[in-house]
Amino acid sequence: MRTLRVAMVGHGFMGRAHSNAWRTVARAFDVEVTPVMAVVAGRDERRVRTTAERLGWAGWSTDWRAVVERDDVDLVDVCTPGDSHAEIALAALAAGKHVLCEKPLANTVAEAEALAEAAGASDRVAMVGFNYRRLPATELARRLVASGRLGEVRHVRAAYLQDWLHDENAPASWRLDAASAGSGALGDLGSHVVDLAQHLTGSTLGSVTALAHTFVPVRPSPEGDRAVTVDDAALFVGRFGNGALGAFEATRMATGRRNALRVEVNGSLGSVAFDLERLNELEVYDGADGDTAGFRRVLVTDADHPWLSGWWPPGHTLGWEHTFVHQAKDLLDAIASGTPASPSFHDGLQVQRVLAAVQDSAATGALVDVGA
Amino acid sequence: MRTLRVAMVGHGFMGRAHSNAWRTVARAFDVEVTPVMAVVAGRDERRVRTTAERLGWAGWSTDWRAVVERDDVDLVDVCTPGDSHAEIALAALAAGKHVLCEKPLANTVAEAEALAEAAGASDRVAMVGFNYRRLPATELARRLVASGRLGEVRHVRAAYLQDWLHDENAPASWRLDAASAGSGALGDLGSHVVDLAQHLTGSTLGSVTALAHTFVPVRPSPEGDRAVTVDDAALFVGRFGNGALGAFEATRMATGRRNALRVEVNGSLGSVAFDLERLNELEVYDGADGDTAGFRRVLVTDADHPWLSGWWPPGHTLGWEHTFVHQAKDLLDAIASGTPASPSFHDGLQVQRVLAAVQDSAATGALVDVGA
Amino acid sequence: MRTLRVAMVGHGFMGRAHSNAWRTVARAFDVEVTPVMAVVAGRDERRVRTTAERLGWAGWSTDWRAVVERDDVDLVDVCTPGDSHAEIALAALAAGKHVLCEKPLANTVAEAEALAEAAGASDRVAMVGFNYRRLPATELARRLVASGRLGEVRHVRAAYLQDWLHDENAPASWRLDAASAGSGALGDLGSHVVDLAQHLTGSTLGSVTALAHTFVPVRPSPEGDRAVTVDDAALFVGRFGNGALGAFEATRMATGRRNALRVEVNGSLGSVAFDLERLNELEVYDGADGDTAGFRRVLVTDADHPWLSGWWPPGHTLGWEHTFVHQAKDLLDAIASGTPASPSFHDGLQVQRVLAAVQDSAATGALVDVGA
Amino acid sequence: MRTLRVAMVGHGFMGRAHSNAWRTVARAFDVEVTPVMAVVAGRDERRVRTTAERLGWAGWSTDWRAVVERDDVDLVDVCTPGDSHAEIALAALAAGKHVLCEKPLANTVAEAEALAEAAGASDRVAMVGFNYRRLPATELARRLVASGRLGEVRHVRAAYLQDWLHDENAPASWRLDAASAGSGALGDLGSHVVDLAQHLTGSTLGSVTALAHTFVPVRPSPEGDRAVTVDDAALFVGRFGNGALGAFEATRMATGRRNALRVEVNGSLGSVAFDLERLNELEVYDGADGDTAGFRRVLVTDADHPWLSGWWPPGHTLGWEHTFVHQAKDLLDAIASGTPASPSFHDGLQVQRVLAAVQDSAATGALVDVGA
Repeated sequence: MRTLRVAMVGHGFMGRAHSNAWRTVARAFDVEVTPVMAVVAGRDERRVRTTAERLGWAGWSTDWRAVVERDDVDLVDVCTPGDSHAEIALAALAAGKHVLCEKPLANTVAEAEALAEAAGASDRVAMVGFNYRRLPATELARRLVASGRLGEVRHVRAAYLQDWLHDENAPASWRLDAASAGSGALGDLGSHVVDLAQHLTGSTLGSVTALAHTFVPVRPSPEGDRAVTVDDAALFVGRFGNGALGAFEATRMATGRRNALRVEVNGSLGSVAFDLERLNELEVYDGADGDTAGFRRVLVTDADHPWLSGWWPPGHTLGWEHTFVHQAKDLLDAIASGTPASPSFHDGLQVQRVLAAVQDSAATGALVDVGA
Repeated sequence: MRTLRVAMVGHGFMGRAHSNAWRTVARAFDVEVTPVMAVVAGRDERRVRTTAERLGWAGWSTDWRAVVERDDVDLVDVCTPGDSHAEIALAALAAGKHVLCEKPLANTVAEAEALAEAAGASDRVAMVGFNYRRLPATELARRLVASGRLGEVRHVRAAYLQDWLHDENAPASWRLDAASAGSGALGDLGSHVVDLAQHLTGSTLGSVTALAHTFVPVRPSPEGDRAVTVDDAALFVGRFGNGALGAFEATRMATGRRNALRVEVNGSLGSVAFDLERLNELEVYDGADGDTAGFRRVLVTDADHPWLSGWWPPGHTLGWEHTFVHQAKDLLDAIASGTPASPSFHDGLQVQRVLAAVQDSAATGALVDVGA
Repeated sequence: MRTLRVAMVGHGFMGRAHSNAWRTVARAFDVEVTPVMAVVAGRDERRVRTTAERLGWAGWSTDWRAVVERDDVDLVDVCTPGDSHAEIALAALAAGKHVLCEKPLANTVAEAEALAEAAGASDRVAMVGFNYRRLPATELARRLVASGRLGEVRHVRAAYLQDWLHDENAPASWRLDAASAGSGALGDLGSHVVDLAQHLTGSTLGSVTALAHTFVPVRPSPEGDRAVTVDDAALFVGRFGNGALGAFEATRMATGRRNALRVEVNGSLGSVAFDLERLNELEVYDGADGDTAGFRRVLVTDADHPWLSGWWPPGHTLGWEHTFVHQAKDLLDAIASGTPASPSFHDGLQVQRVLAAVQDSAATGALVDVGA
Repeated sequence: MRTLRVAMVGHGFMGRAHSNAWRTVARAFDVEVTPVMAVVAGRDERRVRTTAERLGWAGWSTDWRAVVERDDVDLVDVCTPGDSHAEIALAALAAGKHVLCEKPLANTVAEAEALAEAAGASDRVAMVGFNYRRLPATELARRLVASGRLGEVRHVRAAYLQDWLHDENAPASWRLDAASAGSGALGDLGSHVVDLAQHLTGSTLGSVTALAHTFVPVRPSPEGDRAVTVDDAALFVGRFGNGALGAFEATRMATGRRNALRVEVNGSLGSVAFDLERLNELEVYDGADGDTAGFRRVLVTDADHPWLSGWWPPGHTLGWEHTFVHQAKDLLDAIASGTPASPSFHDGLQVQRVLAAVQDSAATGALVDVGA
């Protein structure tokens, strides 16, 4: 049995989700390469040691550079905040490792370009962690679009609505600091909807016009009040290369919407709609259904639905964390077969360019072309 | 019993809905002024005569000018396409009549200004027919916002999605001709969501940035192919005077969405959401609900809900046409009490200015301030 | 133009709904016979006079016997409580009138038998007012079953859930008195679901086993506490003639369910589900839909859906009261064409027999055959 | 660190789910006792060996008796079909092991009595695997009822609807054979809804009246046609000890319903409703909500919701398999603290008595008291 020795850098929220995936993937799926949870790296010795034990990593380290260069490491899984993605992932590629990098790929277009270039020059597999591509429902949606069953795509409306900042007393954190997070709702949530919208439609955004706002500019922290230097919300409309129009929204202030990533695609023949709060469902409208046409609530849990072979009988629903297991599955398959992984670092760069165009438009008020 | 003799000009889709309202309002509600369906005017003699009989109008005419000036007419109800609104409504006001004018108020800002000015100078009641203000669910939403229960308003997302043009073989009509309709989805559907969003939040849009598109530029007609000279869809984002951000969409190409006017308002303390396809329901989220917080599906049919006194016991739902009955009720009350009606022609003008800014932005790619 | 002079006996909740139907039907639909609202009869002179004026009846009377025998009356519309249905409807048939009788047809099987016999012996049209057959969504459901598209019917689950008695301080009324109402939730709500389930499946219940209960046995009234002598809730399961199993529930104590008449039919190939609180929608499941199979939310408002020719464009939803307009339409058509109306008094009798079997089973604990 | 060495007997569908739970529980939750996946037992050597490797069990065996008596085993997890539950669990208790036994506890009341007696006489922890008690949503529902917030419980409607047998060509299996499975939908699905309904209301069923049916009496198998000797569906109504009425349905023929375990409880002050197909949600109705009363769609994923401390931020939903992790967590806590586990074998026996009463009633047509 071929194994893949994994080193994970960073072990917060994403680190927990990734650990679960590495632990589970070979139990649920037939894989040719079995991951070994070799080592986890973090800055705080006590925390990283505890985490390693709790989450099942064989070793731990406070020196990510050393970890990345270890001979007994095959893949580096980057789960840190965005400001260190580039440095870590570039080092990993340079050391000849496969890389899985959390989204957004970087905090700036320049960093993302460097990453895409390095990945292109490497023979290793590099994947960016847009995990919402790995839901059975979204993958079914993509297939429906790609098959032509929805006809010509005309509309995409995509929103990622959260509400964890709706209370003005919610504390400051690295996610609200432009230095570490790059942007706010835009990079954190907007990157997901941009990637998903482009992935579902098979087309990229060509131009955007945007507004952004920080509703609560100062928040408390243990060290006193801190300025919020990122957006609380970003809204934009854009035109896809294939002629479709897109309406986008990313916000952390949508009171009552805990995690509503919603995407709807309208084609000339049919439509699909998805909501992450009901992630086992896809709504599918087929205009050919005549007098019983209506959005079908498809429970995407049948044996022949994407990734369902690894799980339970129909109707036994999956959770959010399963996206990471599917991501690990597909990454292992790419490594086993020596084929590129998707989404690639180039895909991550393209999303970064859209985010930059959105920021530019929000700052200037002009319609901005997405760079290429 | 005081009566109000009504003359209706135009008798298409809207004329049927208005006729039902005039026929029903005094059966359902206590009104001090009872409408009398005096005369209907239309261009085609045979059709207007048939309509009068079918819908219950005492008389008919092919000369709207004569009708508007008849001494035995108290109110002129303008149900024609937008290009004749100004001429007819101005004549009616000049003749000293009350006026109810279908939306949008006019096809241009200039016309709307003339109308608002004339209405301001008149002692008659003038109302524009944004009927979606007259749903129990939307009025409950407005009251919740106005009461402060949702806190500070931060987000409005409003879309009016229809699909009757998704088929490229759907025929051309006056609604697809800029000369008669002014604009396409924007004026027809966008005007509703702009008015409703502003009405619900008690604030007006200050600036917008927009995209618009005509997906099917040529359509069949009995006289051969005709160019579509209006938008099929318009998308825009904007900033309200109170600081909230708004995301808007109006389209006739949202396959599977028959009549989905959706409005959601997120405040700092709570939210409301509405969908016209389920018009008896309002979703209400109250952050104070603690561990049982969630969007409440409120069936807005209780005796103490807006306008429900006129109808049935709880749970016995209303239909789309009831909005016009409520509109007639409130218009009759305004006339009885000698108070201004809402939405006023000034409100209609303000919506027209937003639509003009959207068109300007869609043409230029710039963020455009809404005129005042 | 042929007319039909209508006399309505009783003018409470149902009288208001029927009046709206008589007033509206010929405005919405092409009918060969036009109803004339001739006279309304009631016990209290002041109330019936006011009602006549408010609802648009040409005359009024406190003597229903005289009204029923008037030469200038063609149809008697019985809207009184159940204990007087038999007497009035029999007199009307005896006087050679067409009859529309509210549901349930009677308070006892014996009365219902007399009515069915009289109707059978008459050449007049007699219809019982199970108005929920006249929803576009339920009629579409019936057609789907009848067409064989759902395959062999196996399950029916049907509940009529209301909550207007959930508060133990809700006052007593004629509906809670066995002498006037016959039974409680069973006759009022259960009759609807029994009729609808049998109508949708084209099969009748052969045997039932039941429980019933009165949760609040004493309620306040202006004259002091009054015993509740009818059931608050009745639950039963039964076997249809075609082999299907049915689960039924009728209650006025389902807190939060205002008017939830729900029917679901599962066939070997597909299913349909309906909820009166969303009466414009039918959920349709077609097993042939493969990997996009799911319950379709069909908005039953398209031009080719049942009764929609009389109303508005797709997506412009109908309300509860429209069922009575459709009922009037079909009754007028039956009278015009001289064909029997459906549901017939015989259908009403059959429902009464099911209700009697339910009461019998609830009293004895035994499985009870439905009489024939 | 204290450990608990687990032996699992049986390794089909349930074995996979239990394995995932043992593997995950100590990664997600703080537990005082850490499970060790010691050994899995099965009949077929090749299959059990493969399973052990795939699912992560240290050892395997084809001799469950030997396994149960091993000194290095602390807990026996019984995942076999119902006909062997009693033998295995009794042996495990006799050998001084803790026991987790899949539901239903047994195929007969006599077996269940023996099990409950043995568990009562043992100082070991014995739990029956009604995993649907371990959903955050159902536990929140239970707390709401127990707190009195819903008032006096009047109605329970509980259905477990699946459709995997709707096709008459679906093959025979041990689940359709009375010898191994005891009963069909009744024991498999009905046991869940009976347990859940009793658990949520804190009351037990006192009497029931029922119907059952086998719609497809013969099914194909590799060895030729086989008789189906269990029910395809069972429907019953019953009376709870606290006076509430219950309506129950268990079926494998509800075409389109993949896994719809639905429970609704109506109290005098409020209601809750749950559907396993949307297992992260609880609908909560609070009559005190006044003019904004409506069923709240509570996404039961907040940090203070049951078991959510082990998982992700709000809105990041759980899947079906998480119920088993929670079950393991609570079982480990019981073992650590030396307190009884819930549901106990006595609870399992009580459910068995209800199932027996249902079968009795379905056979005789009589209302049957549940034994005690």
